[in-house]
This record gives sequence, structure tokens and C-alpha cells, in this order.
Amino acid sequence: MNIYDIAKLAGVSIATVSRVVNGSDKVTEKTRQKVLSVMEERDYTPNVFARGLGLDSMKTIGILCPNIADVFMANAISILEKNLHQCGYDCILGCSGYAKEDREQHIKLLLAKRIDALILVGSTYAGRSDDREETDYLRETAAKIPVFMINGYVDGDNIYCSYCDDFRATYEVTNGFIREGRKRILFLCDSHSFSAKRKLAGYEAALRDAGYPVCEELKFFTRNDIHFARDMLLASEALEFDSVVATEDGLAIGALKYVLAKGLSVPKDLGVAGYNNSQLSVGCEPELTSVENHLEQMCTDTIECMLRVLQGETEVARKNEVRCEVIKRGTTGF
Amino acid sequence: MNIYDIAKLAGVSIATVSRVVNGSDKVTEKTRQKVLSVMEERDYTPNVFARGLGLDSMKTIGILCPNIADVFMANAISILEKNLHQCGYDCILGCSGYAKEDREQHIKLLLAKRIDALILVGSTYAGRSDDREETDYLRETAAKIPVFMINGYVDGDNIYCSYCDDFRATYEVTNGFIREGRKRILFLCDSHSFSAKRKLAGYEAALRDAGYPVCEELKFFTRNDIHFARDMLLASEALEFDSVVATEDGLAIGALKYVLAKGLSVPKDLGVAGYNNSQLSVGCEPELTSVENHLEQMCTDTIECMLRVLQGETEVARKNEVRCEVIKRGTTGF
Repeated sequence: MNIYDIAKLAGVSIATVSRVVNGSDKVTEKTRQKVLSVMEERDYTPNVFARGLGLDSMKTIGILCPNIADVFMANAISILEKNLHQCGYDCILGCSGYAKEDREQHIKLLLAKRIDALILVGSTYAGRSDDREETDYLRETAAKIPVFMINGYVDGDNIYCSYCDDFRATYEVTNGFIREGRKRILFLCDSHSFSAKRKLAGYEAALRDAGYPVCEELKFFTRNDIHFARDMLLASEALEFDSVVATEDGLAIGALKYVLAKGLSVPKDLGVAGYNNSQLSVGCEPELTSVENHLEQMCTDTIECMLRVLQGETEVARKNEVRCEVIKRGTTGF
Repeated sequence: MNIYDIAKLAGVSIATVSRVVNGSDKVTEKTRQKVLSVMEERDYTPNVFARGLGLDSMKTIGILCPNIADVFMANAISILEKNLHQCGYDCILGCSGYAKEDREQHIKLLLAKRIDALILVGSTYAGRSDDREETDYLRETAAKIPVFMINGYVDGDNIYCSYCDDFRATYEVTNGFIREGRKRILFLCDSHSFSAKRKLAGYEAALRDAGYPVCEELKFFTRNDIHFARDMLLASEALEFDSVVATEDGLAIGALKYVLAKGLSVPKDLGVAGYNNSQLSVGCEPELTSVENHLEQMCTDTIECMLRVLQGETEVARKNEVRCEVIKRGTTGF
């Protein structure tokens, strides 16, 4: 016996059953009584899936991110919390770190708190490889409560994903450098996450479309620490490049520091583009061309999607791609 | 009937009653039975004050900050969450905004979630004026559960405060400029919070100790937005100053942008010092002298204090001042 059976037996829609369970005043007293009597007759109590339908709901959402000290994630959680609060939900926050076992353990702990839904912030939860087994833990979680991902995609029932089109934005930046006549474009990254992989794919596609070779030595992996990134670039004396596509603003600032240490000029000798359009991108000189990922829209889309799912709607899209925007400033010629 | 009465009747210390309630194995079976029988005899159940003693505990801590998108607060919450998680506590997060009524409403909502303790991050909760009534809401809250403040101080039972010695750090920075021979030292701020007031007091004390006048026009209030701060400084054409003591790194970066727009040189024409030692302070050129507030220590001290209070210890200091450190970089001559 589930919500669909109750709706059928009562001769109403699922949405109406959901409204009755939610105590909505948009249902006539007659309909309410009809639905409630069918529920009683069949000894129906909403199951874990339907927890969000109102009965047994704690009005509490679990939010998990790997590291809230990361500006992107802190901003996301700020927007999520504000919107959830306005809708009458509380948030239980977890910071899981990046290790697989820690991520899984944190999800188990949040589930034990009787949350109505789980929101995962950051592409780390989508796994690093194409191995489907790596994301089985999310499909197992989604068998219990709806799961919402911000900036990641995992295929599965009850998993809803919002992410920005990192592929297109990185393609556009790389192509900008190509149109300026740059020949050796460095891809500067610090992660192998879902998002990082899409950025890399956009970079490679732009190179290929322009007939450029994809050189492995131009994919440069470092840490998101300004001085560390600068020093790693300085240490790579044999590496030649005339532009940098960075996957984080902090990495791009590291490249600007490298330019300064080498006595070169930006954007003449080296073009530099960052990602996330953070405060860092306007703190330097020249100011940094960066990608605005429209995080706020991703977050509000996620909340809207979540409310629809929790109200029992069944026709909710599981993928939502948000368009990014390249913000052109002084570190690029395009 | 309270925990003190039970201790007296059982002929043991409060700490022992607390251990029994917590199920600690440091109590002999005989003592445990004695305490439990007194509790039963007197029909005693730990009240809301004693919730943290173990019975009726949700192992959940409420954390409230005005704005988690603020780097300082995001870092604090990251450290708090990690430490609480290690101690087996979950966090319910609230972002209250800065308005008094919103702060109070958010606290009420968190209290309704049966939290064991409340941690307030940010000096905004300590009020802006010296008016004691402004912080009555915290004393009312502390009558229900222990309250812990990070970077603020409010006097009251069951309110425990950790804050950095902003007075001394700002004194040291201001005095550094005085020793360099600067005459017109601008105090650049964006808040009237507890912390901002202590910084201002340190600035004024350093001026006075050096026999300098305290000029009202050199106290410059703006918004923590790099371009906004720069433009406000540029618009104040009549204002003369040769150094800037900023209460946030973002404000200091705004001053660096002002220098650039005026065609001046740092630190020769203008010395600039920021606050919080954030990523912004190493993203610019020259890199920014800033104040490291040892946030991590403030947070771990707070958790340690909280655990002691929740375990029923009565001799816990209500004030904990953490020493700041001036990190000298290229924007100052000292």
C-alpha cells in the first residue's frame, strides 16, 4: 500500500493525498475526510520515501559539503540555509572531508538524524572515475530519502542534480586564448572531481576544434594555495606556456605571482583566467578574468526542486544545467 | 529539587552526580546506586539546565552566525563542526543576518530543536552599544542552555566567551605606523560590533599614548566591498592620510586599489594594514600586512569549554582572550 494506491482508492490525485498529509487548506473538508478514511481503512502510514509528505517530517534538511572553509561551498550553504529557513526548514550541517569513507560515514550519520532530504554541495560526491560502483552509496542513500546534488551529477532514481556548464565556460575561455593567437595554453587544476573533469573536457575540445594538439605536459596539477602554486610553476623551468586556464581563482592568482617573479607582463606575456569569480579575482592587479558560475541560481533551483519532490510531485527533472558566464577583466586580451 | 540538592542528599559532589547521569565508568557501583536511588526517591529528572548532563541529550549543538558567506565565519564553523563531530555531536546551523529581531528569532527556532548548547559566531551577537538591555536576549537564552560566544563578550551566568585581543593587535599596528613617522592614520571600518569597538579603542589608545590627536574625520566607515571602499576613498578628496588601519582585509585591499588609482606608491606614500590574515592578504601586490586572529584556537578553546560545561563542571572560566599576531608583509614599513 503506497501513496499511489491511496490516491486511486480515494479517487483523487497523488497531489491531493500529499496536500491532505501536509495539512494544506487547499483541500475541501469532504475530500480530506475521504482520503483520511481510506488511509485508516488500509492502515496506511507514509513510508520513509513519503516522509517529506508531512507526516513524520522533522522539517529538517541535511546538508553535506567536504569543506565549508572553501568560499564556493560557504556561499552555497549560505544561500541554501536562507532559502530553507524561509520555507520553514532547519539545516543539519556536516563537513565530510574529501575521503570516500568519510563521505559515506557522514551520510549515514545524517540519515540517522531523520532528515527529510539530503543536499550534497560540491562535485566530490559524484566520484572521480567513471566507475559506477564509486557512486553506489548515493543510490543506496536515495532509496531512503531524496538526494540533491549541487555541482555534481550522479544517475539514479530520487537523485536530483544541479550543475553549471563548466564544459562550455572552459571551452569559451580556452577558445578566447586561441583567438588571441596563444599557442601553449596551460590547464592549471587541483582536483579530479566531476567538475574538474568537465572543465578539462571543455579545454581539450577547444584545442581539438582549433586543430591544436592536446599536450599532457600542459595539464598541470597543483594545490589550491597561492604561494604553493606559484612555486610549483617556478620550479617547472622547462615548461613553456603563454596562457593559463585555471580551475580556481586561487590557482590563477598563483599564476599571476609566477608572472611577477619571472618579471613578465600580464596579459602580454601571459594570459590568465580563473574560475568562480570570487573576491580574490578583484583583489589583484590587473583584475582577473574569471567564470561566474551563478551559484545562487543553482542553489535556488535546488530548493525549488526539493520542495516539489517533498510535496510528492513525480514529474521533477533530475538534471538541471545552469549557464556560466565568462567575466572579462584585465588578465586576458579577449 | 536540582542537581545540587541531589548531590547533597547523596553525600557526593555535583561532578559525581553528573558522572552518574552521563553513565561514566569512573563511579563505583555503590556510589552510582546511591545517587540513582536519591534521584528516584525525589522523583528527580534533570531539567533543561542539566540537559547536557546526558539524560535527554540530543547530542546536538546549535551554531548561529550572521552570514556564513563571510570567510571568517565560514572558517570558524568549519573548525567547530569538525571538532564537534569528533566528540560525537551534530550541528544544527542557522544564519541569522545582522538585524536584532532576526537574531532573536533564529535563537528561538534553534532552542525549539532541543539543542544541548548554543554557539554564536561573530561579535554582532554582543550588541553594538553599551546598553545592557541589548543583550538581555542572550541572558534569557542562557537561562535555558549554555551559550558560547566566539569573538564577542556578554556578561551573564551560563554565557562563555572566547575572543581575540583586538585591542592589543590594533594598538600594535597603529603604533607601528606612528614609529614609522606617519602622522595621519586612517581607521577604516565597516561595523560597529563588539570587535570593531575594541579595534577602535586600540587605535585611539595608540594615538593618545603617542600624544597624537584623535580626529573624527580619520574614522572612515564604509562597506566590506573592495571597489565600494576604493570609490568611497576616492570620493573623499579633502581627506588627507598617510596610512590605513583597516578592520578587514577586504577594506585594506580597497585602500590598495585607491593607491593605484591615485598613482601613489605602497608603502612609501601610504602604509596599509588589514585584519584576519585571509587569502586576500596574499593575493595582492605588495602582499598585505594583516592580523592573524588565531581563530582555530578560539574555536577549539570554545569546544573544550563547552564539553566541560556539558559534563557538569562548575569551575569553568567565562572569559577566554586569545592573543592575535601581526603578520608583517610588504604594505607596511614596520
